[in-house]
Amino acid sequence: MSELETVAELAKRRGFFFQTAESYGGVGGFFTYGPQGSALKRNVEDRWRDRFVTRAGNMEVSAPDVMPEPVFEASGHLDGFDDMIVECPECDASHRADHLVEDNSEHEDAEALGIERVADLLGELDIACPDCGTPLGGESVEEFNLMFGTDIGPGSSQPGYLRPETAQGIFTEFPRLKEYARGQLPFGVAQIGDAYRNEIAPRRGLIRVRAFTQAELEQFIDPAEDEPDIDSVADVELPLYSAAAQAGDGQQETYTVREAVEEGVIESEWIAYYLGLARDWYETIGIDMDRFRYRQHKAGERAHYAADCWDAETELDGEWVEVTGFAYRSDYDLTNHAEATGDTFTVFKQYDEPQTVERPSVDPDMATLGPEFGGQAGAVADALESLAATDPDAFDGDTVTVEVDGESVEVDTDVANFAVETVTEAGEHITPHVVEPSFGIGRLFYSVLVHSYETDEVDGEERTYLSLPAELAPTFACVVPLVSNEPALVEQAEQTREQLREAGLAVAYDESGAIGRRYRRQDEIGTPVCVTVDHETIEEEPTSVTVRDRDTTAQARVPVDELQECLLALRAGTDFADLLERDTVTPL
Amino acid sequence: MSELETVAELAKRRGFFFQTAESYGGVGGFFTYGPQGSALKRNVEDRWRDRFVTRAGNMEVSAPDVMPEPVFEASGHLDGFDDMIVECPECDASHRADHLVEDNSEHEDAEALGIERVADLLGELDIACPDCGTPLGGESVEEFNLMFGTDIGPGSSQPGYLRPETAQGIFTEFPRLKEYARGQLPFGVAQIGDAYRNEIAPRRGLIRVRAFTQAELEQFIDPAEDEPDIDSVADVELPLYSAAAQAGDGQQETYTVREAVEEGVIESEWIAYYLGLARDWYETIGIDMDRFRYRQHKAGERAHYAADCWDAETELDGEWVEVTGFAYRSDYDLTNHAEATGDTFTVFKQYDEPQTVERPSVDPDMATLGPEFGGQAGAVADALESLAATDPDAFDGDTVTVEVDGESVEVDTDVANFAVETVTEAGEHITPHVVEPSFGIGRLFYSVLVHSYETDEVDGEERTYLSLPAELAPTFACVVPLVSNEPALVEQAEQTREQLREAGLAVAYDESGAIGRRYRRQDEIGTPVCVTVDHETIEEEPTSVTVRDRDTTAQARVPVDELQECLLALRAGTDFADLLERDTVTPL
Repeated sequence: MSELETVAELAKRRGFFFQTAESYGGVGGFFTYGPQGSALKRNVEDRWRDRFVTRAGNMEVSAPDVMPEPVFEASGHLDGFDDMIVECPECDASHRADHLVEDNSEHEDAEALGIERVADLLGELDIACPDCGTPLGGESVEEFNLMFGTDIGPGSSQPGYLRPETAQGIFTEFPRLKEYARGQLPFGVAQIGDAYRNEIAPRRGLIRVRAFTQAELEQFIDPAEDEPDIDSVADVELPLYSAAAQAGDGQQETYTVREAVEEGVIESEWIAYYLGLARDWYETIGIDMDRFRYRQHKAGERAHYAADCWDAETELDGEWVEVTGFAYRSDYDLTNHAEATGDTFTVFKQYDEPQTVERPSVDPDMATLGPEFGGQAGAVADALESLAATDPDAFDGDTVTVEVDGESVEVDTDVANFAVETVTEAGEHITPHVVEPSFGIGRLFYSVLVHSYETDEVDGEERTYLSLPAELAPTFACVVPLVSNEPALVEQAEQTREQLREAGLAVAYDESGAIGRRYRRQDEIGTPVCVTVDHETIEEEPTSVTVRDRDTTAQARVPVDELQECLLALRAGTDFADLLERDTVTPL
Repeated sequence: MSELETVAELAKRRGFFFQTAESYGGVGGFFTYGPQGSALKRNVEDRWRDRFVTRAGNMEVSAPDVMPEPVFEASGHLDGFDDMIVECPECDASHRADHLVEDNSEHEDAEALGIERVADLLGELDIACPDCGTPLGGESVEEFNLMFGTDIGPGSSQPGYLRPETAQGIFTEFPRLKEYARGQLPFGVAQIGDAYRNEIAPRRGLIRVRAFTQAELEQFIDPAEDEPDIDSVADVELPLYSAAAQAGDGQQETYTVREAVEEGVIESEWIAYYLGLARDWYETIGIDMDRFRYRQHKAGERAHYAADCWDAETELDGEWVEVTGFAYRSDYDLTNHAEATGDTFTVFKQYDEPQTVERPSVDPDMATLGPEFGGQAGAVADALESLAATDPDAFDGDTVTVEVDGESVEVDTDVANFAVETVTEAGEHITPHVVEPSFGIGRLFYSVLVHSYETDEVDGEERTYLSLPAELAPTFACVVPLVSNEPALVEQAEQTREQLREAGLAVAYDESGAIGRRYRRQDEIGTPVCVTVDHETIEEEPTSVTVRDRDTTAQARVPVDELQECLLALRAGTDFADLLERDTVTPL
């Protein structure tokens, strides 16, 4: 079995994730997180929130998954969020045309070739339907929009879509969010939530799915002034695979954040800052840093909104998978929503000192323009106004020429009533730029699972365990009575379990099977400690239990009074070895 | 302003919730949780998880929001999840026909009257379109399915729906979930997630919305044997408003859980258990227990799956609002999914001792039936088999009569080869029953906000504050430098803020405006404490800060070294008054 198959099998058997509704034959691209997976995924989200919301002092919002059509007209998703689809004339199966071309040629990014060239290539390369073998040459290739559509309210008068990214739920609310920030840039708004892409061919487990969880941070900045706290991450080492290196036969190279900025490998300081901040975060959640890199997007590869983009990628089964996109979205989104709605998607930026500026204006004499231009008089007036703003010198002569409906029109300058006012302004309205780190929680979850999958040998038998960081483990501890047929032991074990649960710890309980087998079950789901209640526990004073460490299988005797405190310390990051240093703890 | 309007205004202004995409004119029934609301909502969810998952030892799963059509065929939602809609012939507006009848008559539950009677009543009551005044008598009333539909994958070959309740994402996975429970009843599976109802007329803020968050617990039990731990909640007092009391002119009455069970006011012990458990939980999250009751569903009011149902209701603006439904769903869902899929939605229940049972069987002689009944022979054999199971005595005579395709058919008993085997069985396959507490997180959130809204007078001015429990408050503390133009003060304040954030506390920072105004801002969003850095802080040793209590506005001097520990204690529930007892803390 491949690495991904091995982990997928474990995931299904032990409750991390599995295809949804398998009793109904399953539904492609939809997965359910089981008891272990749901907890692990939430723990990844909580760690993200701690780092990118709480400690960063950012806001977090929660917008609905369904948004009305005009939002996605403005965002560009209605027109631009398409995949190339070809339908088999024989068996009606739908396929990604660009993927078929990539699978049958040297092309690495067939989408960039355009839809007509891809259609031609289906014929030139003699590509056949993967399902039934019918040749696809000559079949039409269509754009298929990847948004799930629905109707809001009765009838079809108000179309809506499941959001393809959580970000638009932030951008659309900018006029209000800036008030919560009291109009002061920079500020960041985060959201953890679901997004949807109606993939033609979902595949590879959690990697290409139709419903997924994103953790997105929209950092709003004044591009002219705001700078990130680059010093705080200056020495973080980044494994960078630049667009230039990809174009030539260059390799991934390691730079500190400072070097990457100074040498111009990363253009935007804000992007560099977030690559640094995130690099250390990935490590804390258990990503193997030897299987991690930052890859810059090539020019043709960027999303419709991105001025520059770097991906964080993890290596799974020998392939690199994007787990985060760091995009410089500039003012693309806010400008589009402003144009679509007429609402104010700007912030007022106060000058250090009020500035005096010259403001050219016109006040056309409609009593003259009306008779002369009839129905066009209004358009002529508008054209004069535009011209005054862009080219005031045009009003220097006796007549001024403007273009109306494609024709040149001459007007007496006097009629325009051109003037230049001198005004003092306290500041200006600017549209913030957006820097966006966008994390794919499902893929991160998957990477953590795969990278933490370990095998070793214990007591002459092969053992499988997940070396998950203690804070992330879905089940933190399992309480096991040594035997299940002695009421005193079981009662004590149940009491211990309750005490630990009341401290907010995720605690399992297992009384069935040999003790070694019970330990193995917990190892396999990455439970950091097992707590064993044995005869010594109930017979001797002070009452104590055995605590077993997952990674080393080392054991120690811990007084029951101190158990809760010890486990909380272990969950917060204390090493098991450090625990053994306590006077009251006895290594076994 | 009404109570709800006052809170809605505060909610919008201070970032609790607001209508989604207001720049686009808003979209009915969709709300966005702002920075304060998103945190408060999550804190409610976390408290729920602590009580109903972690401490209860239940599983939690996370299924996708979109499910394929066959799931909802089986669950009954495709046919039964409808509202009555009438469209105005003049202005095309859609209305809930049953609501129009209720608003214009004494009927309290018009839906129960049936669609034809409601259509008649539109005419009899001279009901007109609320928007344009056109009479609606004679217009047709239609069933409108409340699920949002979509298509999975290209084309319309695989219809799907946004789930109308999270529960089906648990029921469909029962065959796997029971494995995680190792086949042992009882076990509980919880899910916190979004659900959707395409309401015809969304209204009343967060009360009737189109997208909402549910926290559902499906408790799977063996109805013949499993009993809840009723002793643990026996003395909890429940304000009960029974169906009987509603039918007569009875009033709400208070019973302990034990009394309610013993006197038969609550039929199911499991429902009673959860009413008790939940009652105390509601109180911890800040629901006003004087504005709370449990109301039993009347017979006509129950959902299609519910055998008995009680609602938890909170009083908002003088009206009672359902915040949780406690339903006895019996084996309705599992049976339906089993029939739809042929998969195993049962658990094997081992007998205490193997049981010997008589198992009647037939082995029809097809060589005789074939020539005699032709194409009907198979149906005859099947009918004999059914009859053997249900009425073995029918095989006592020389001939046996079965019904095939509506006709009686006589068969020689010899041909049936009837026999009774004696077999020993270790157990039986049973379909578990389901007890479901289903919490509406948005309505609970709304109730907590409304019930915690308080005003008093401080320094001669009216003050507004939210008396949220410390653990629930979206912002736990705000750090404020006394003045903003002294760098040493600001630096110390920023340091304090960072230290508290690193401890995982949600900490705001505010340096603008008069100190009293800054306190008021925090009071208004329910921030339990403000931490003020003043001249004493930077000039005297040991360094200390002022900590101010939201509810009493009392203040105390706390050493900076102990600040983190003190705040963590306050968040965990320590009273501010208890904090003042510390030797190192000085009341001001």
